Amino acid sequence: MIKERIEALRREMAKRGIDMYLIPTSDFHESEYVGEYFKARKYMTGFTGSAGTAVITMDEAGLWTDGRYFIQAENQLKGSPVVLYKMDEEGVPTVKEYLEQNLKEGQCLGFDGRVVNGKNGEKYEKLAAGKNGRLHVTEDLVDLIWKERPALPTEPVFLLAPEYAGESTADKLSRLREKMKEEKADVHVLTSLYDIAWLLNVRGNDIEHVPVVLSFLIVTENGCCWYVNSKALTEEVRCYLKVNQIQVKEYEEIYQDAAGLSLDETVLLDKSTVNFRICSILAGRKLVDKKNPTEAMKAVKNAVELENTRKAHIKDGVAFTKFMHWVKKNIGTMEMTEISASDYLEERRKEQEHFLDLSFDTICAYGPNGAMMHYKAVPESDAVLKPEGFLLVDSGGHYLEGTTDITRTIALGPLSKEEKQHFTAVCRSNLNLAGAKFLYGCRGVNLDILARGPLWDLGIDYKCGTGHGVGHILNVHESPNGFRWRIVPERNDSCILEEGMITTDEPGVYLEGKYGIRTENELICKKGEKNEYGQFMYFENITYAPIDLDAILPEEMSPVEKERLNSYHKLVFDSISPYLTEEETEWLQVYTRAI
Amino acid sequence: MIKERIEALRREMAKRGIDMYLIPTSDFHESEYVGEYFKARKYMTGFTGSAGTAVITMDEAGLWTDGRYFIQAENQLKGSPVVLYKMDEEGVPTVKEYLEQNLKEGQCLGFDGRVVNGKNGEKYEKLAAGKNGRLHVTEDLVDLIWKERPALPTEPVFLLAPEYAGESTADKLSRLREKMKEEKADVHVLTSLYDIAWLLNVRGNDIEHVPVVLSFLIVTENGCCWYVNSKALTEEVRCYLKVNQIQVKEYEEIYQDAAGLSLDETVLLDKSTVNFRICSILAGRKLVDKKNPTEAMKAVKNAVELENTRKAHIKDGVAFTKFMHWVKKNIGTMEMTEISASDYLEERRKEQEHFLDLSFDTICAYGPNGAMMHYKAVPESDAVLKPEGFLLVDSGGHYLEGTTDITRTIALGPLSKEEKQHFTAVCRSNLNLAGAKFLYGCRGVNLDILARGPLWDLGIDYKCGTGHGVGHILNVHESPNGFRWRIVPERNDSCILEEGMITTDEPGVYLEGKYGIRTENELICKKGEKNEYGQFMYFENITYAPIDLDAILPEEMSPVEKERLNSYHKLVFDSISPYLTEEETEWLQVYTRAI
Repeated sequence: MIKERIEALRREMAKRGIDMYLIPTSDFHESEYVGEYFKARKYMTGFTGSAGTAVITMDEAGLWTDGRYFIQAENQLKGSPVVLYKMDEEGVPTVKEYLEQNLKEGQCLGFDGRVVNGKNGEKYEKLAAGKNGRLHVTEDLVDLIWKERPALPTEPVFLLAPEYAGESTADKLSRLREKMKEEKADVHVLTSLYDIAWLLNVRGNDIEHVPVVLSFLIVTENGCCWYVNSKALTEEVRCYLKVNQIQVKEYEEIYQDAAGLSLDETVLLDKSTVNFRICSILAGRKLVDKKNPTEAMKAVKNAVELENTRKAHIKDGVAFTKFMHWVKKNIGTMEMTEISASDYLEERRKEQEHFLDLSFDTICAYGPNGAMMHYKAVPESDAVLKPEGFLLVDSGGHYLEGTTDITRTIALGPLSKEEKQHFTAVCRSNLNLAGAKFLYGCRGVNLDILARGPLWDLGIDYKCGTGHGVGHILNVHESPNGFRWRIVPERNDSCILEEGMITTDEPGVYLEGKYGIRTENELICKKGEKNEYGQFMYFENITYAPIDLDAILPEEMSPVEKERLNSYHKLVFDSISPYLTEEETEWLQVYTRAI
Repeated sequence: MIKERIEALRREMAKRGIDMYLIPTSDFHESEYVGEYFKARKYMTGFTGSAGTAVITMDEAGLWTDGRYFIQAENQLKGSPVVLYKMDEEGVPTVKEYLEQNLKEGQCLGFDGRVVNGKNGEKYEKLAAGKNGRLHVTEDLVDLIWKERPALPTEPVFLLAPEYAGESTADKLSRLREKMKEEKADVHVLTSLYDIAWLLNVRGNDIEHVPVVLSFLIVTENGCCWYVNSKALTEEVRCYLKVNQIQVKEYEEIYQDAAGLSLDETVLLDKSTVNFRICSILAGRKLVDKKNPTEAMKAVKNAVELENTRKAHIKDGVAFTKFMHWVKKNIGTMEMTEISASDYLEERRKEQEHFLDLSFDTICAYGPNGAMMHYKAVPESDAVLKPEGFLLVDSGGHYLEGTTDITRTIALGPLSKEEKQHFTAVCRSNLNLAGAKFLYGCRGVNLDILARGPLWDLGIDYKCGTGHGVGHILNVHESPNGFRWRIVPERNDSCILEEGMITTDEPGVYLEGKYGIRTENELICKKGEKNEYGQFMYFENITYAPIDLDAILPEEMSPVEKERLNSYHKLVFDSISPYLTEEETEWLQVYTRAI
């Protein structure tokens, strides 16, 4: 089947004189996750993972993916003509190196200019020019052969009322226009779905677990035009837009309107998120290539968002605590699997008021599965839970009040000394970062060692950042804040930590074939004392669920660390217990006792 | 007197049509400290501080200096026509802003092109061009009026024998030429006095406490030419140079030789250290503007340098411990002042074998004087030491084996609770950084919070980096390693910490008008365990002197911190006691006891 698809694609390539065709995993907006319509790479290769790039030439078809997916990709590519390129393995070329090595003098590189961002598109343009070749980017060739392609989504758009948004669209637009003025920009092209949803106080359902609306936006000093599937708009939304003087046009009209912009106009846009087709259309105008001003604005949550987020976390904590109590009570006596357990947890979330959706696919990973950071249980892998070892559960929800992301690792029975030592170190890591007091100006890079230190002391590391920003009823991973010890510019998560930003704190231990441990809370960055040395900052912990005391070795914690754990557990009990049954409350009392 | 000098300068300016004349504090090599010959700014303004820039116009004379020197500069400028510009104070223009605001259309800005680096020279060039003005940079106007100017130094040059250098000049040159090849450079112009001394295994005495030789160097694939005052070379040195095929020319000949370089040649040089005159002369050639390769090479000390440095620190620790014992024993019964105490310490250093010089002016600061980070006792300020409060002593020596930099704060008598709390926090800061275990790839910016954290927890900060690299019988402040939480590109001290680098660890508390506390050790960066997570690194403490237990509150330290202090003190006792008298040994036993 894959073979036939590739051959069909090659016929289309041949008609147009295209020698290599690139298919990344992307929508037209550089979203982290993409809707069904956009899964062209999956269609062409059969590989279903969330990240990967396919390159089709006349005699080869390659798929690039990263370490998380090597085993899965090997299985899924079996029997197909697609060759797996394992990213970051020694001797394996990157996609770009492959193109450089294989695109011959005068040849043509093709891709859909809408699924590649402006920055990368320019790199490919340069690469082709260096070979006296050309690009073919005005067509989506996969669309020509993908008969049963899902339609673009038309999920209804809903408004976020002022008591949930905390700031009116008018005020947000006015702040954005201030920034445009600072950049001397006449026009701002905004294509990030998260930023558009934040700016217009709208939400939708166009990407699984990411409540955004597939759309583009063009803002000028006096105007604002939203390019969106008009069928998705209710009368209420239309009215709201009218009141806010926001014009509506169809999703695809962005391209002709971009082309219609005067050559005298200065356009503010972020080439690392705006797609290459739009960037190409705008060529000739003065472009100010900067981060979208809305990115920093939406990362700083307003007082209403923060207050609501705390409420969301209490609901989420109640759901999780009920789940944890249920697991602890029934393990060994009731049949439980990774999937049945995560279903139970999902039910507890769903019964909370104003629950909208999970904020991502639950990771419910038992024993060795926990060592895979992005494990998702499927029927074939679904492990039966036994009264021993660790169950790692990373999950979260979207509520009308906000979004949550929490990880707890639960001891299902007796643990080894080593397991407890590792669990205790992760707990210390988590609490030490949460307890930081620091001068304004610090970035994640300055604080990361507070979390990583206790594990580094044991000669252990986790191969990922310590934490990420969290969107407000948007993508659970949000820029530009985060905790990471090495600055990776493309990740865009090393900004100065500002008051009102929410960042996760999730150190872990991952031992392949053995187990995984992760403890994740969310932290609000707040202003503390200001004195002659500057403005001090600290974190407020807003995740409320017990850290399993069955896995803690108190003798490995310093008095300060014990005090941190005890006061955290007191906060959990005080926040959550009013919403529990008597039995659950008694249980929680034991699991939040002072040590 | 200053008035007359300024008027004389203005006459010279007028003759040449120069409207503003800039006099920085610099030699021709961007050295941190400068020799007597180069103190033109001091001559022209009367201000003796180590940092400052003068700008003379036809009707104004301004001096810019930083916060360390405001009081001193105010006093020294009193009665002169020179106006003080307090750097970093609100509303005070920077030198560059002042030039921009005051240089009028078509005017001429003058300075000696040899005392401004290429990077800054280009900025001034642009500034003048922006006003359709010009530069006059080919003359040193101060030299025309400074009759009693000290001569350029002719201190004898000495060789560092292989058993002290650890690597031959031939090997160093060969490594340098490898780097030149990588940069595709035909010629390398090296003007940093530290790098030249390191490369040629020579030392001199041309800057107080910095044993360098005033000189330039040009390296090609096959040749090497040293521009140096030939009178400073002994027969032995001449022989050594000949054997190493290093040609000698006079110091000033660099300029004509630079001019003689073919226009086809590619020249590797660091415009932030090579002076503007040389950079201007080289214009037209292809310049590769990068850090000198020798900078990173000399920062990584070789095994011989490290082993010798440990020996130097033992001598230095013996000297300091003898001094500390003497102070503790005699305070209150013998008359002691800041100067007499620092003289006593200097004597103890001088009696150590192979002592060459102090590595910088000793800071011996009692009580409130300790709060001034760069305090130097002079007869007018020389405080009498009383049996109470803190004495802060920051000092070091050059020995044939290496260079030291140590700070201890000594309790001279009873302390308040707050003083002890602050001292204990500084001790914890110092030990926590020294005890770090971290993955290779970390920079100072990642580790700084380990030192700063205990003070930030108290709402206190120190307004400087936590530590700097240390030169090997060179400048006590050395790039590119250091500990600092904010990356400041100009400071060039945020490199990845490499095995063999030596960095100071010197957190402190500075309370204006009250006291200063600083505890400074030097740390060698070393490779530890290497496993699936990467290469772990750790530090070896190579400073051996007691941290005053009279000022420690054990109850404010965690068990791990106490263990760190105790094992550090055991190391001090074991290393130092063999070289002490019986009385001193008994004393040291008490002051290094486990707590």
